[in-house]
Amino acid sequence: MTVTAAKGFTAAGIAAGIKQSGQPDLALVVNTGPRRAAAGVFTSNRVKAAPVLWSEQVVKGGAVTAVVLNSGGANACTGPQGFQDTHATAERAAEVLGHSAGEIAVASTGLIGVLLPMDRLLSGIGAAAAELSPYGGEKAALAIKTTDSVHKTAVATGAGGWTVGGMAKGAGMLAPGLATMLVVLTTDADVDAGALDKALRDATRQTFDRIDSDGCMSTNDTVLLLASGAAEVSPEYGEFADAVRTVCADLARQLIGDAEGASKDIRIEVVGAASEQDAVEVGRSIARNNLLKCAIHGEDPNWGRVLSAIGTTGAVFEPDALNVAINGVWVCRGGSVGEDRDLVDMRFREVVVTADLAAGDASAVIWTNDLTADYVHENSAYSS
Amino acid sequence: MTVTAAKGFTAAGIAAGIKQSGQPDLALVVNTGPRRAAAGVFTSNRVKAAPVLWSEQVVKGGAVTAVVLNSGGANACTGPQGFQDTHATAERAAEVLGHSAGEIAVASTGLIGVLLPMDRLLSGIGAAAAELSPYGGEKAALAIKTTDSVHKTAVATGAGGWTVGGMAKGAGMLAPGLATMLVVLTTDADVDAGALDKALRDATRQTFDRIDSDGCMSTNDTVLLLASGAAEVSPEYGEFADAVRTVCADLARQLIGDAEGASKDIRIEVVGAASEQDAVEVGRSIARNNLLKCAIHGEDPNWGRVLSAIGTTGAVFEPDALNVAINGVWVCRGGSVGEDRDLVDMRFREVVVTADLAAGDASAVIWTNDLTADYVHENSAYSS
Repeated sequence: MTVTAAKGFTAAGIAAGIKQSGQPDLALVVNTGPRRAAAGVFTSNRVKAAPVLWSEQVVKGGAVTAVVLNSGGANACTGPQGFQDTHATAERAAEVLGHSAGEIAVASTGLIGVLLPMDRLLSGIGAAAAELSPYGGEKAALAIKTTDSVHKTAVATGAGGWTVGGMAKGAGMLAPGLATMLVVLTTDADVDAGALDKALRDATRQTFDRIDSDGCMSTNDTVLLLASGAAEVSPEYGEFADAVRTVCADLARQLIGDAEGASKDIRIEVVGAASEQDAVEVGRSIARNNLLKCAIHGEDPNWGRVLSAIGTTGAVFEPDALNVAINGVWVCRGGSVGEDRDLVDMRFREVVVTADLAAGDASAVIWTNDLTADYVHENSAYSS
Repeated sequence: MTVTAAKGFTAAGIAAGIKQSGQPDLALVVNTGPRRAAAGVFTSNRVKAAPVLWSEQVVKGGAVTAVVLNSGGANACTGPQGFQDTHATAERAAEVLGHSAGEIAVASTGLIGVLLPMDRLLSGIGAAAAELSPYGGEKAALAIKTTDSVHKTAVATGAGGWTVGGMAKGAGMLAPGLATMLVVLTTDADVDAGALDKALRDATRQTFDRIDSDGCMSTNDTVLLLASGAAEVSPEYGEFADAVRTVCADLARQLIGDAEGASKDIRIEVVGAASEQDAVEVGRSIARNNLLKCAIHGEDPNWGRVLSAIGTTGAVFEPDALNVAINGVWVCRGGSVGEDRDLVDMRFREVVVTADLAAGDASAVIWTNDLTADYVHENSAYSS
């Protein structure tokens, strides 16, 4: 499974000593070819971590030979020294693997504003390279965890014997424009960089861009898709794009399911919208309403908070035509009191909020989670 | 103090039985003249409560004789019946006071999506009218509380013997475009409706619109300013506007100081901005960053979360020119690590976050508060 499910890839994950805890913190993913096509999508935050600035340039070349990923430090807001450190990381990997540094992507995650312990990271690259294996995907997925309680992997296969596999990390700071996530997807299908780019952008727009854990956008989000061509199959674009989207959707769902402190996964379905853009805007506004997220934590079907969130958007709707269901019970009809709220059963982890704008046929789904005391505790003590 | 500090006003606050707790829940403020000029500012949420829809129309006439305010129910998302209930409230007050219903403003606060107990509210109006007094301002301020731990009042006086006084309620769902707040300001200065409107809009834009407790915009926000002319003084506009802004700033600060579950009041100063609009946009983005609000709760000077919030805005800045101070310690210089974060003392309730965009001379201050487990508890159990 994970990044070594597709042929033509090796991976490793080790403890390099970047994390004080001694947990695994360095992963290496290598494309052994014959192709080395790649695409990437990065955070839209204007404050970008050094590895994001570096990898954006690498991916522009359309070829990626290897990805070095570390947890234990984001290398964000670290100035010129931070960028030099990322550069040195790529150079060391290039030296060890016998490739050009210009084809080595780097991704980092952890606390912002702290320089990485470069001596440990650089020696770790050699140690990780010595452990590279076509069965190393799980270890790589484990090494990129931060506050994740589990590692996240997914796979999809296509007719003709090709595969898309991937790994992800992320448990907080998840918001549109990508979440605090590092994702590496690999495929052995023979696909060129242009098609990889299109498939990856379409997939992220409909998956990672539609999860919003806490409205906080990261400086480090990175999603990479690497193609080795080792399966010697060139799938139809549509079929390939479907597989990429399937894997992204699976990983996105896992990210929300592991969000920091969450006790409920909330699926916000916006229907009856005049446009998909309206549906997404309304879904995000609902997903970011702290009061609603608290209410759902308390298993309280407080639909008024859904309406007040919708009311802050610019979407097309009439207030007295809005309908809202919670877990299938239409507690709000025509902008006013609907079915009995006592009929709503919210005991299970997944909660579905349906907002009908009664303004068209477009729809979108946004995932979020509840706001809990555990989230507050976890994030008030993270760096101290 | 409060709404009866100015001459020409009487007020009352009683327990009408709208709240199940038996606490005071109905307030009446009456302008006894000789003038009855008025202005109002209301929520910009497109889902507006019935009393907001009603009072917006009343205020357009430029004259308000009385305001009926209730806690214990927002009368929002209550459909045509809710609007009829607000209309009936104004009609009853008009009957009891001997005035036209078209000059009676109504304001409500409490749970959304529940019809008010109209029998109790209508009998309450008669009972409140019987208690109207030039000393009734405190009782009125007490009767509009919901989750407020204290009632909020303020006063300013002008040369020549005129006064602006006011009361406010609000402790959550506080966000730009006004907070979940009901505010009534009164003055005995002789000011016409046009000048009242201008002074009130200028003041709210710089005070209530710049507090953001939890990013959640209410359906019921109402700020009214009533002038009796009883002091027989017509102040200079600038002097009068200053007094209105002073009272609004005082009340706004009290609202943030009493925000639900908060343990820290956070003053976000954005300086060096290319425009005031940029400064406000950046300030709001910082104020709404849940991760930062958790960190401040934990007394953790996690400045990386400030930078990642700035990075989501469209303001003019260069990432490597940003500076951030927490309580005066410049922990971030030039977008990277600055002074030692251990120098930051965050033990006191007020925390100052200064963000220098290094892009111009404009500035703005936004107030918010920390995110705490108490906020989660209070808002996960509010309606149940």
